[in-house]
Amino acid sequence: MTEPTDGVRALAVDIFGTTVDWWTGVTGQVAEVAAERGVALDAGEVADAWRELYLPSMARVNDAARPWAYLDTLHRESLDELLVRFGVDGAFDEPSRRRLVRAWHRLPAWDDVAEGLARLRTRYQVVALSNGGFALLTAMLKAEGLDFDAIISAQNARAYKPDPRAYREAVELLDLAPDRVLMVACHRWDIDGARRAGLRTAFVERPREKGPHRTADLAADTASDVKVGDFVELAAALGC
Amino acid sequence: MTEPTDGVRALAVDIFGTTVDWWTGVTGQVAEVAAERGVALDAGEVADAWRELYLPSMARVNDAARPWAYLDTLHRESLDELLVRFGVDGAFDEPSRRRLVRAWHRLPAWDDVAEGLARLRTRYQVVALSNGGFALLTAMLKAEGLDFDAIISAQNARAYKPDPRAYREAVELLDLAPDRVLMVACHRWDIDGARRAGLRTAFVERPREKGPHRTADLAADTASDVKVGDFVELAAALGC
Repeated sequence: MTEPTDGVRALAVDIFGTTVDWWTGVTGQVAEVAAERGVALDAGEVADAWRELYLPSMARVNDAARPWAYLDTLHRESLDELLVRFGVDGAFDEPSRRRLVRAWHRLPAWDDVAEGLARLRTRYQVVALSNGGFALLTAMLKAEGLDFDAIISAQNARAYKPDPRAYREAVELLDLAPDRVLMVACHRWDIDGARRAGLRTAFVERPREKGPHRTADLAADTASDVKVGDFVELAAALGC
Repeated sequence: MTEPTDGVRALAVDIFGTTVDWWTGVTGQVAEVAAERGVALDAGEVADAWRELYLPSMARVNDAARPWAYLDTLHRESLDELLVRFGVDGAFDEPSRRRLVRAWHRLPAWDDVAEGLARLRTRYQVVALSNGGFALLTAMLKAEGLDFDAIISAQNARAYKPDPRAYREAVELLDLAPDRVLMVACHRWDIDGARRAGLRTAFVERPREKGPHRTADLAADTASDVKVGDFVELAAALGC
């Protein structure tokens, strides 16, 4: 019987949302800094709004409306805009803003990741493929104790997913044909971008990844070769 | 007391010779392929001669005498040249040449590496920084069961060590000042290149890395911040 993942040699795994719970991590750290500054602020709303500026900020880089900019820079610009919008611009000094940007460097992994990743690595090359900066990814995955076989960042391509250049750089670095690589992600835009670049795709549903106020993407929203609920299910689906 | 490694946050570790025993690995695989082809050949001499073409072949890329070429391509060109020189050009068909180039993808780690690396990773970010291709490094380190925090290849910079661009790309990817990064290597040219790029340096002496017919570089040949005999000694020297 032919399986849709036959011939896959490597898995390229998205990080924010798919591997780590950015919403809980960012909300907690925003609440902490806000409390220290004596500011009343709905930290979850800030996290929601901050993430909503993420795709548009990267699109301006991909469309060459601006030169390559590191994710930390984009996060900082979005934060400055939000603090004005939330009417608390005066309450956050430079060090506290830098700390808030660093909140994205230290996010907790979902509970199933460590086990699923270890099982997947017994059979496949498993690399991180994220829009996070290379240093951010290296530090965050190390802090969470998650060993990947390698880390590939949008920074390596100087283009952000879902731009095809980001996926093609990964495929080229791995020296594989695109259809030997399975993109693992919880966002429709990432799955769609990977498919357009010729990769296979696995949708991992993360219903809580946008927190309690927003609706997460569902596997049913798009086409993918594999649909699973977490990394342990993914390992089982791929025979690990 | 001030130590020469104070402030170091990350280690950039060379691979061929420093981490893996290329001479034994390549010699064994050359001997195996030669036996299958029924050719009498001193496999160790081939390994020696092959490696001696390594730095000149990379220098032509760094000097822009030719465009970027993947290490496998350079290895293949050197091999073709050597088989003529050894008078056995007719004995190796295309598949056997491809297999010989792949010999560089599967090399045994020195005995001290696994323990030393695990100890070093408890305190530092430890990344591979090698002239090997990204795919080669990912596959080889996985096969040897060696987990680094990340892998950086000369391919990421499109320039080979000791060109300063190779070290600067690593420092930029790690988002650190150059003197926060300690280059760990067993070759004088690599230590010298890293120092010129502003990195700290640790010389690991590998007296057998060029096999029984060639003399390996010694720490005394150049200046470095740390001089050790293996990765376990390095861990101890760095307080791990």
